[in-house]
Amino acid sequence: MAKLWGGRFEKATDKLLEQFNASIGFDWRMYAADIKGSIAYAHALEKVNILTVDEVTAIVNGLNAVLEEFDAGTFAFLPSDEDIHTAIERRLSELIGEVAGKLHTGRSRNDQVATDMRLYLLSQIPVLHEHLKGVQRAIVDKAEVHLDVIMPGYTHMQPAQPILFSHWLMSFFWMLQRDVDRLNDLTRRVSVMPLGGAALAGNTFGIDRAALAADLGFLQTSENSLDSVPDRDFVAETLFWAALLQTHLSRLSEDLIIYATAEFGFVELDDAYSTGSSIMPQKKNPDSLELVRGKTGRLVGNLVALLTMLKGLPSSYDKDLQEDKEPLFDTLDTLELELPVLAGVISTLRINAGRMASALRDDLLATELADYLVRQGMPFRQGHHIVGQVVRVALEKNCGLRDLSIADYHAISPHFGDDVHDVLDFRRAIEQRDVPGGTATKAVQVQIKRAKELLAF
Amino acid sequence: MAKLWGGRFEKATDKLLEQFNASIGFDWRMYAADIKGSIAYAHALEKVNILTVDEVTAIVNGLNAVLEEFDAGTFAFLPSDEDIHTAIERRLSELIGEVAGKLHTGRSRNDQVATDMRLYLLSQIPVLHEHLKGVQRAIVDKAEVHLDVIMPGYTHMQPAQPILFSHWLMSFFWMLQRDVDRLNDLTRRVSVMPLGGAALAGNTFGIDRAALAADLGFLQTSENSLDSVPDRDFVAETLFWAALLQTHLSRLSEDLIIYATAEFGFVELDDAYSTGSSIMPQKKNPDSLELVRGKTGRLVGNLVALLTMLKGLPSSYDKDLQEDKEPLFDTLDTLELELPVLAGVISTLRINAGRMASALRDDLLATELADYLVRQGMPFRQGHHIVGQVVRVALEKNCGLRDLSIADYHAISPHFGDDVHDVLDFRRAIEQRDVPGGTATKAVQVQIKRAKELLAF
Amino acid sequence: MAKLWGGRFEKATDKLLEQFNASIGFDWRMYAADIKGSIAYAHALEKVNILTVDEVTAIVNGLNAVLEEFDAGTFAFLPSDEDIHTAIERRLSELIGEVAGKLHTGRSRNDQVATDMRLYLLSQIPVLHEHLKGVQRAIVDKAEVHLDVIMPGYTHMQPAQPILFSHWLMSFFWMLQRDVDRLNDLTRRVSVMPLGGAALAGNTFGIDRAALAADLGFLQTSENSLDSVPDRDFVAETLFWAALLQTHLSRLSEDLIIYATAEFGFVELDDAYSTGSSIMPQKKNPDSLELVRGKTGRLVGNLVALLTMLKGLPSSYDKDLQEDKEPLFDTLDTLELELPVLAGVISTLRINAGRMASALRDDLLATELADYLVRQGMPFRQGHHIVGQVVRVALEKNCGLRDLSIADYHAISPHFGDDVHDVLDFRRAIEQRDVPGGTATKAVQVQIKRAKELLAF
Amino acid sequence: MAKLWGGRFEKATDKLLEQFNASIGFDWRMYAADIKGSIAYAHALEKVNILTVDEVTAIVNGLNAVLEEFDAGTFAFLPSDEDIHTAIERRLSELIGEVAGKLHTGRSRNDQVATDMRLYLLSQIPVLHEHLKGVQRAIVDKAEVHLDVIMPGYTHMQPAQPILFSHWLMSFFWMLQRDVDRLNDLTRRVSVMPLGGAALAGNTFGIDRAALAADLGFLQTSENSLDSVPDRDFVAETLFWAALLQTHLSRLSEDLIIYATAEFGFVELDDAYSTGSSIMPQKKNPDSLELVRGKTGRLVGNLVALLTMLKGLPSSYDKDLQEDKEPLFDTLDTLELELPVLAGVISTLRINAGRMASALRDDLLATELADYLVRQGMPFRQGHHIVGQVVRVALEKNCGLRDLSIADYHAISPHFGDDVHDVLDFRRAIEQRDVPGGTATKAVQVQIKRAKELLAF
Repeated sequence: MAKLWGGRFEKATDKLLEQFNASIGFDWRMYAADIKGSIAYAHALEKVNILTVDEVTAIVNGLNAVLEEFDAGTFAFLPSDEDIHTAIERRLSELIGEVAGKLHTGRSRNDQVATDMRLYLLSQIPVLHEHLKGVQRAIVDKAEVHLDVIMPGYTHMQPAQPILFSHWLMSFFWMLQRDVDRLNDLTRRVSVMPLGGAALAGNTFGIDRAALAADLGFLQTSENSLDSVPDRDFVAETLFWAALLQTHLSRLSEDLIIYATAEFGFVELDDAYSTGSSIMPQKKNPDSLELVRGKTGRLVGNLVALLTMLKGLPSSYDKDLQEDKEPLFDTLDTLELELPVLAGVISTLRINAGRMASALRDDLLATELADYLVRQGMPFRQGHHIVGQVVRVALEKNCGLRDLSIADYHAISPHFGDDVHDVLDFRRAIEQRDVPGGTATKAVQVQIKRAKELLAF
Repeated sequence: MAKLWGGRFEKATDKLLEQFNASIGFDWRMYAADIKGSIAYAHALEKVNILTVDEVTAIVNGLNAVLEEFDAGTFAFLPSDEDIHTAIERRLSELIGEVAGKLHTGRSRNDQVATDMRLYLLSQIPVLHEHLKGVQRAIVDKAEVHLDVIMPGYTHMQPAQPILFSHWLMSFFWMLQRDVDRLNDLTRRVSVMPLGGAALAGNTFGIDRAALAADLGFLQTSENSLDSVPDRDFVAETLFWAALLQTHLSRLSEDLIIYATAEFGFVELDDAYSTGSSIMPQKKNPDSLELVRGKTGRLVGNLVALLTMLKGLPSSYDKDLQEDKEPLFDTLDTLELELPVLAGVISTLRINAGRMASALRDDLLATELADYLVRQGMPFRQGHHIVGQVVRVALEKNCGLRDLSIADYHAISPHFGDDVHDVLDFRRAIEQRDVPGGTATKAVQVQIKRAKELLAF
Repeated sequence: MAKLWGGRFEKATDKLLEQFNASIGFDWRMYAADIKGSIAYAHALEKVNILTVDEVTAIVNGLNAVLEEFDAGTFAFLPSDEDIHTAIERRLSELIGEVAGKLHTGRSRNDQVATDMRLYLLSQIPVLHEHLKGVQRAIVDKAEVHLDVIMPGYTHMQPAQPILFSHWLMSFFWMLQRDVDRLNDLTRRVSVMPLGGAALAGNTFGIDRAALAADLGFLQTSENSLDSVPDRDFVAETLFWAALLQTHLSRLSEDLIIYATAEFGFVELDDAYSTGSSIMPQKKNPDSLELVRGKTGRLVGNLVALLTMLKGLPSSYDKDLQEDKEPLFDTLDTLELELPVLAGVISTLRINAGRMASALRDDLLATELADYLVRQGMPFRQGHHIVGQVVRVALEKNCGLRDLSIADYHAISPHFGDDVHDVLDFRRAIEQRDVPGGTATKAVQVQIKRAKELLAF
Repeated sequence: MAKLWGGRFEKATDKLLEQFNASIGFDWRMYAADIKGSIAYAHALEKVNILTVDEVTAIVNGLNAVLEEFDAGTFAFLPSDEDIHTAIERRLSELIGEVAGKLHTGRSRNDQVATDMRLYLLSQIPVLHEHLKGVQRAIVDKAEVHLDVIMPGYTHMQPAQPILFSHWLMSFFWMLQRDVDRLNDLTRRVSVMPLGGAALAGNTFGIDRAALAADLGFLQTSENSLDSVPDRDFVAETLFWAALLQTHLSRLSEDLIIYATAEFGFVELDDAYSTGSSIMPQKKNPDSLELVRGKTGRLVGNLVALLTMLKGLPSSYDKDLQEDKEPLFDTLDTLELELPVLAGVISTLRINAGRMASALRDDLLATELADYLVRQGMPFRQGHHIVGQVVRVALEKNCGLRDLSIADYHAISPHFGDDVHDVLDFRRAIEQRDVPGGTATKAVQVQIKRAKELLAF
């Protein structure tokens, strides 16, 4: 048996086109989804009397035998297997004969492709969830252990205000939590069954679509066959979801790469997550994190590939849509390898509290001074301006804010009292920020508690 | 009053940098959001005794006066107004004096920017919903009126099976309904209040963030100040949402552009939605639809701009983030103009049922023949192959499937009975597809009914 | 022998990171480039007395033996081979012992990667040229054979003016000729040798870089080691080149897909370049062209992947750069398969001159009428307006421009003389456009002649 | 006078469509190009006797008057001016009457648009060149002045080998030099005149295109009217050129942002190129560089917008192409503001040689030790491994490589002689790398000399 569609053709397909056209090189991975879908469809055909009980038994047994071959790695592909659907149908007909040809009654290959992709993705979503949680768990564990570590907080990479290291780390927990939230939302839209759309106009044998959907674990059935067979919104949404998640991972990586420089020295990667140089014997490089950062390009590229392909496509199925699979699979593969690596990087990261402490510059306390003036009744803008002058004086004297004398402060503004040095304290500055979501220890403890509750699901 | 931050600087900012740095050219449109946020914040400051009742009254009255100036178009910008926040603060201090400087106690400009953008976007989402519904309504109305029109259904732009014109049109309703659904989901994530994050580490004056959120109409408050001030996920998600919506619009446009060609002639655009040529007097071009299709590039580009900007950004706020606004505003502006235009195109579209009918080729009925054989008990694959031969014979005889005689059919397969011509009927083929989501009249009526229910919200 | 860099490490690399980090799965294809580079480098080391003549002989023989293993498909990879460079070095040391370790004196792996990629790409550019010419040749041949065929020319997909089919087809020749031109330009920039940059700061053994470049066939040597080791401009430029070329191919595909519809019927694809449907026996789909169109997404995505990866990367080499290879290889593979398929599609395309002729509507001649009035001395704008009225009258009478009587014309404008019908001739309209680059037969013949000259190189 | 094309239409254009369709909001900037093109075209029409000498005089004088209005800012737009071409034609006809309508004989608006865009871009290219040179000049000047400054060279942001600060800085000169080179190449392709293509099929009045091109300063005329009117390759190429240039600028910015952190402290931005914070009085942020880095998203987005728009577009002109202008103009505007800002940042940058010197860690000399062993005859791989052990011992002893005794070295390998400490010298390491393109002072001086020669053009 060769192609599924040769009847009307007089000439064989060009060899290069066959190669160009074939998707078996990447769609084979949907074999389990395809077989699952076919078994359910066989039962549906029985209910409308297209298949007898015996035929269904033969088909289901045959499909299960094919599944075993795939699982065992013994399935033998033939050059004529242009895609996974053809390959399975071919093998089924070898195993059970002509009755195999009845399975495809009222179902088109594109109906099948659309269904398989959704089933396949639905099987991967729990894996993605687990990997995301793995990273989140590594974050929370680390944040909890190092709750007492103070580091400089930056904006524009310039010293801003002191923060807890755990506050910094937990900020990535919440980014990822939004990714979890978005993944839940999109799952609902993946879980819509197209099967029964046939080529474009709907099944002609009165298939019970609602029962099929229930059988296959879909939450809904699609509303319009013409829309649902070529609908790839769920792929686009997954690719975007991954690309945005990836920007989060790239920001975490960027921070850690900078914090791991000799000049910052805030953290050190474990040897297990570093690599060396072929020429420089001293080297220990954060390749793991650089790859994470670099793979953002790949995942944004995959999203663009899909959206550009979809742009201006005529209605219904066009072969262009075959270009949906490789970006999706590549994105899933990337995440499924990268997330555990990142979890490992975080879990094994050494935190150098000493280097962080020695990086706490007086500058980080300038806002405390402005707030001090506000508490004396001065408008913040004026306070800000006066503290700007304090900073300038300290720069001129080449000293820190804590090194200026009360007299120095008085000279700039009489509103500075004798207690001005009291506010120039890193720990105090941190505990001052005890608003929900702030960096005060209690506020960060609340974050950690909530995070653990979320992870408990 | 000049900059908000000049105190520590010895030298003036370079003039070109001022221009490069300024965002007032595009962020002015958030004035109402900014003022709304400031009024709520003033009340919050009062509760923690930073402002007196009188000060709040002065500030609120002042802000309302500024709002009126904006609404009336009389607000006078100064060259030193680097952004909308600075401009409003400057004007407020002109109007009410030094007390204006108290409003910014414990709030950073980036805190404000993040809050304003969310408030602004929340104000636009109902507009987007209304415009989307406008297009959906035009679709449903048209589909209902033309329920009796049959057209060729295509896959790969080649004749596939007959469908109802209304089935084709309704396919776009459901695409857009997914967009509605996604817009609902993302709205939840836009509706998270960052205010209270201050620069990065949290507000120091014990502001009641939950009350502020309630006051401003946010569903939630953010969990981590370091994450929430620079968080632009909500922008990315909106830009993706728009880009995917736009691929749907581009597909609708592509279909209509092709259907409006002289060669298809299925539809004609109203003069009001067409334009002519400067050189060819006969021309009537579907510019409206081509622009819709073309603007897909713009919206995908806006998404890529944001994601690329976010890639690898160090933690917390960096100035790169200022590049978030123009893509967002441009995308909103595009949709808010384009969607009503498209609704108009659809509402005024002339449907040429005659041209559609004359495009119904016998080819479209080949699947009916295969199904016929299946109903005789033949496996579908075999049926498909036999009908392939029928098609080839018809091609050789240069006639349609309906023109072949019973004898011709018998010659190819004895399974073709005398009743074979009965299935070669376009209407019958359509009504045969009466599965939920299929093209049968009843099934399309169900679609229309459901669509109307969804639009009733 | 394991890693190239293990000396300072206490712990083994994490297994998942090894997998995440490995590039052997895709960079193996550069084996010949790698070996070529190493042989040249061995000779260079001899000149500076790092290697003896005997050592060079051993190394070169060893490398040639490794090359033979690759060419023969007998090279055995080990799990520890993280990339092609490691794999070859490992195998070389197995074959010739410790002296293999001398080859890498003063050369870093990244030096090697950058050199190999350029050598590899330089080896593919002639292949790309040949494939491009293959498509161009198919275009010119077809254009020459069908020089007498007239078709409607479109703008906005609406009938505009009559043109020669060959003029339409040749328009794609010139697009591709710009791609040829750009490929020539970028080749100059690929042909710059980074070798000698070492890790980042330059080779310490006084290697003669100019001689090395000459030996390896590079046109130039790079000017700054810090820039040249991580420079991937040549990859970005190649990916852009391919993406732009691909938009041209997508436009050709789009036209042909539309022209191959039943409604246009201007062309028919050969069976060898079409595929069928699993469910609809009559189907003959232009999958080849749809895949070409669809692959535009992939190639734009590859470009975006690279640019996004490069964005904001710190100076010198970062591991992110390893993400350069898969987009490049995927783009090359796509083009090397797709271009020959497209050449085949064009060569075997059936041109249906009859369908084109019957699609020639009178509308296409409206500009001739305006030009007619201009030749009477009327300003074009006025002529355009008058012909607009003629068109409207014809629409009202539901007839063609040629069907209106002289009286009808006179009634609209007295400037229409008795000879007005003379200009309403498709062939005349075409030959009228005899400006260079126009659609007149002579002008198109000039195009074909020039094209042949360009192809002769 | 209203639209250029209203004759055949019965109904007015929808108001929203007019707004959606209008390009006057952004294409007005091409007024000088449009008028230049029209003046040349008027002369061309005279040569073929469509215009009399008097008519040409009237038209040219009229156009010059319009030009003066634009230059003086007194040109009054009307709501009906849908684009710059319409606006100018409308105004010309107000000034000189009906003869204005003769100017457009044989020329279509799209012919004009394509010509204007190329003329406009050609007028901007010298500006871009000058701005690029400005940045390059700032680099060379700074590199020359600080030739004696040594800094740590990094790969993966980890200390690698010592380099000259000037070597680091010059690496960006050469990146930009490739951009200069690419700009030269693309200019050749911008300088191709489409004029004479008319709507799609070529001019009907025998216009002398070669003379027109010479008159307008184009290097070539296009070869095929159908290709050249909608050809936007030159826009795509410019947008890619800019996006790649922008990745270079983003890498320079990233380095400087990191080098300007308190922890690195290698450089300090001038106050004139820094900004402060609204809340933190001590802040001095590198906003200028962050904006440069951030704008990479914008420029990549503009490129994607254009490529996505072009994908799958039917042949000849489609209105989608109007989406070409905003990305191009936005990209040009961005560069023309950003490049001078960046030149200013570099020129005024303070270099902190002391901080760089104190960041020179012994680690940076590990390669020197391996090279030392190579010079004793040891294979590099073995030397690398032994030095890896040296590094590990130093780590264990928590000291630098220079702090290990001769005995320590001997204990690891007998190949280390008494002179081993001699190679542990930063300056020596630098001067050792005296290969062309290396970091040795002489090699960097050669770079600076060549750079000055290139800038002299």
